[in-house]
Amino acid sequence: MVHAQQTASVLRGASEPAVAVRQGVARRILRTAELMTVVIDFSGGPWREPDPHHSHPHEQTTYVASGEILFLAEGSEPERLGPGDLFAVPSNVPHSIQLLSESARLVDTFHPIREDFL
Amino acid sequence: MVHAQQTASVLRGASEPAVAVRQGVARRILRTAELMTVVIDFSGGPWREPDPHHSHPHEQTTYVASGEILFLAEGSEPERLGPGDLFAVPSNVPHSIQLLSESARLVDTFHPIREDFL
Repeated sequence: MVHAQQTASVLRGASEPAVAVRQGVARRILRTAELMTVVIDFSGGPWREPDPHHSHPHEQTTYVASGEILFLAEGSEPERLGPGDLFAVPSNVPHSIQLLSESARLVDTFHPIREDFL
Repeated sequence: MVHAQQTASVLRGASEPAVAVRQGVARRILRTAELMTVVIDFSGGPWREPDPHHSHPHEQTTYVASGEILFLAEGSEPERLGPGDLFAVPSNVPHSIQLLSESARLVDTFHPIREDFL
């Protein structure tokens, strides 16, 4: 993880090791005091079904950098998203994704910091 | 601009019109209450010199989705960044970029909301 505290910081994708979260899910984290961006690389897809819904008080925006996903959220129709698309999740709205392609990269940003990712 | 208020929202890159900020700079905005993600497409590069430094109280993280840039910030060495790299800017740290390729896409996220972008 890279933490920009007093000065600006850089995270280079090629040199910052990704941390495996579980099989087929690896992440790199860049944070300031109140903002956390998590680059998540998925592999081993497509998935047969979505992840179970989850929720968190943190607000979230996500940029789809590569791959195809189904984005599901309580109160919304499922949406098929690809490169250049984004989604946003207000505080505490249950949501999940299903990986539709072999691999994908999502760029998630949270406020406040996901202390559970530290 | 897409604003996710009570439910999740999606911004599709192909259907959400980009707003021209100035010649060669266009943006699309997705926000929640406290988080704003701005997809910025640059064209007409490379630039002969960096933009003047600017600063804002908002914290910022940026994902380089495509292209090559020079990232400059007070107190740090200039960094040449490409696809998959990121930078983070703490509150009030002066910074700027120089576009090194013909085009580039940056995905900036700010907390709190950039009211000056509304």
